Amino acid sequence: MRSDPDRLQFQIAARDGAARTGRLQLAHGAVETPAFIPLATRGSVRSLAASEVAGLGYELVLGNTFHLMLSPGPQRVAALGGLHRFMGWERPIITDSGGFQVFTLAHGRVADEIKGRRGRQPGRGTVLEIGEQGVRFRSYLDGSEQFLGPEESMAVQAALGADIALAFDECTPYHADRDYTARSMERTHRWLDRCLAWHDRQGPRRQAVFGIVQGGVHEDLRRAAAERVSAAAVDGVAIGGTLGRDKEEMRGVIGMTAPHLDGAAPRHLLGIGEPDDLVDGIALGVDLFDCAVPTRLARHGMALAPLPATRFRFDIRRAEFAADERPLVEGCPCPACAAHSRAYVHFLSRAEELTGVRLLVLHNLTYLERLVRGAREAIQRERFGDYRQAVLNGTPPWQGAALTPSGP
Amino acid sequence: MRSDPDRLQFQIAARDGAARTGRLQLAHGAVETPAFIPLATRGSVRSLAASEVAGLGYELVLGNTFHLMLSPGPQRVAALGGLHRFMGWERPIITDSGGFQVFTLAHGRVADEIKGRRGRQPGRGTVLEIGEQGVRFRSYLDGSEQFLGPEESMAVQAALGADIALAFDECTPYHADRDYTARSMERTHRWLDRCLAWHDRQGPRRQAVFGIVQGGVHEDLRRAAAERVSAAAVDGVAIGGTLGRDKEEMRGVIGMTAPHLDGAAPRHLLGIGEPDDLVDGIALGVDLFDCAVPTRLARHGMALAPLPATRFRFDIRRAEFAADERPLVEGCPCPACAAHSRAYVHFLSRAEELTGVRLLVLHNLTYLERLVRGAREAIQRERFGDYRQAVLNGTPPWQGAALTPSGP
Repeated sequence: MRSDPDRLQFQIAARDGAARTGRLQLAHGAVETPAFIPLATRGSVRSLAASEVAGLGYELVLGNTFHLMLSPGPQRVAALGGLHRFMGWERPIITDSGGFQVFTLAHGRVADEIKGRRGRQPGRGTVLEIGEQGVRFRSYLDGSEQFLGPEESMAVQAALGADIALAFDECTPYHADRDYTARSMERTHRWLDRCLAWHDRQGPRRQAVFGIVQGGVHEDLRRAAAERVSAAAVDGVAIGGTLGRDKEEMRGVIGMTAPHLDGAAPRHLLGIGEPDDLVDGIALGVDLFDCAVPTRLARHGMALAPLPATRFRFDIRRAEFAADERPLVEGCPCPACAAHSRAYVHFLSRAEELTGVRLLVLHNLTYLERLVRGAREAIQRERFGDYRQAVLNGTPPWQGAALTPSGP
Repeated sequence: MRSDPDRLQFQIAARDGAARTGRLQLAHGAVETPAFIPLATRGSVRSLAASEVAGLGYELVLGNTFHLMLSPGPQRVAALGGLHRFMGWERPIITDSGGFQVFTLAHGRVADEIKGRRGRQPGRGTVLEIGEQGVRFRSYLDGSEQFLGPEESMAVQAALGADIALAFDECTPYHADRDYTARSMERTHRWLDRCLAWHDRQGPRRQAVFGIVQGGVHEDLRRAAAERVSAAAVDGVAIGGTLGRDKEEMRGVIGMTAPHLDGAAPRHLLGIGEPDDLVDGIALGVDLFDCAVPTRLARHGMALAPLPATRFRFDIRRAEFAADERPLVEGCPCPACAAHSRAYVHFLSRAEELTGVRLLVLHNLTYLERLVRGAREAIQRERFGDYRQAVLNGTPPWQGAALTPSGP
């Protein structure tokens, strides 16, 4: 780890077991942790203006290096004053490295693997070559040849002006064997060194860099990666790669990784953010989470809810909600639940009206913001174990947060 | 005309030539006129929650009988407390009769006529029979057979609970000859009587009914229709049907109709709402306008602007805006222009991000709200001629509204 207060300061205010709550100070402001990070993949959080994302209580969003490098392009964004100014967002931004997206082009998604669709190529995007230097691929927008390696990724993230840049890594697929995963991890470590070298020479002075821990589901690899990345001159660590086949294996991977990380540095679990994953990750010492779930579910008519039996969600388009006058979730403080019925959101979602998607985005993002806020408060009061159990049992986050302090 | 202050009160506060400004009191509140009415076709104004429509300054929205009768259906909406409660909108609502939509199924749209696409049937919707009783057609949703006539239209509008219901009419196409147009107009008048008879017997006590003036582009027919509808027990009048091939012919049709209407009753010009049409219609004595233009343009990446040479709009997706840091329209008070650049909206619109559509909806609706607000103020100050000319010459509505009073 390096320590440069101009880039990043992380103060842990309270701990409860492995869980911790604190404050991450970045170039564009502070982020209370544990935090959920909404995706602003292509410069916007689905259907929301930046001011609305802030209005929901979020302090950090994640921009996507792969998509933004293809359009509008790093030079364009830089010329317009950087990603913050481009999207009208004044708070901190983290950008991913683009590694996940280019390797997804090559390897297919985990969901595709499980469903036997390995090798499907989305759109016109295709990987041409993976080598020590990086990845050659075709743009899904115009078929043009593109190259992304450690230096290129850092250069894009520098042009975007992110508060936190992620080092370029290979996200190994679940179907990769131990040998491939180990060799890939070693290359990811060499890439980390190149990222840090590039950043030292020409990265933005106030930009923090997180290294990424790979190693698949293998305990020895995860431990080696955690120690190797923690020993590098990074400002924080992200846990990436395949996290296993199911949630139990995912908890196992986090549990075999976190103890070997520098306890004083912030930890980001990449691409994870369902309600149970959040409380489980926080229990294992994770500080930051990003995930497409709240916005992607909204597009498919799904609302987050305190329903452990159905993965904390329900499909508002189901016929049973056509005349249901209750809000999406009783007691939810979001703008959709405050003013509208399930019947209305049901109708709008079935009719594919944009207002329906938007109401579900507002609901789902409010739900996760309340969930991590409740976690922070519970950790402060040393009641996180109860809070986690309440959430897992189906207590709404805003009720879980109101758990009374334990008596003497 | 009838006069029932429980249904509708219309007080004209000031006149300037044929233009007038006033206040329309309806069951759910007051509407300052002249007013533009956003379309809430299927229970929502594209991408907006009802509270946001009110926040933009709108006092009246238009719901669509044809679409809402097919889904969620009048019984469902009534069981949920009516359209106001269903969509969370507490201010007045006007509903169209469904006539325009069913006859568009049969006749094709004016745009289709002009483009030689007459007879194209959208989706699975098809007209099976047009007769004295009404129109038999197939639902575009499920292919089911449906019937809409004067009584059925009024029953749907009663179930929706609109503040203003429109009488059921045939919207004759531009290609119809004089003889067809005259016979159709007569039937529309018989349908008006049936609508009023049904409404007298079982319509909501506080619901106003507007009759519709047809007659195509024929002066004698328009005059006969204006007098016939004004003589009926309606609470206001809407000018419908084909308004000609171009804007000049449209102004001619309004000009041959308006003088024969009851001067004390509100007048609604159906389906018209481009910036020049608004000031021209107001100059001819129109009080209410509804139109899909602001929301439909937004979906196609178009922003309203003080640009008379290009129909008061521009396509933000054009390459020239890719690095343009100015707001959509300099000085515009909308949330999009206050916080975001053309470059950002350009990028979002090209990327088909929902946030782009939404920013353009907010801009376009703000633009028209400011335009009619400026017209009201100008009429109060007897400066409407100057205001109209300023708008037609390309002055932004918010500047036109600030025209200083003429000196002594």
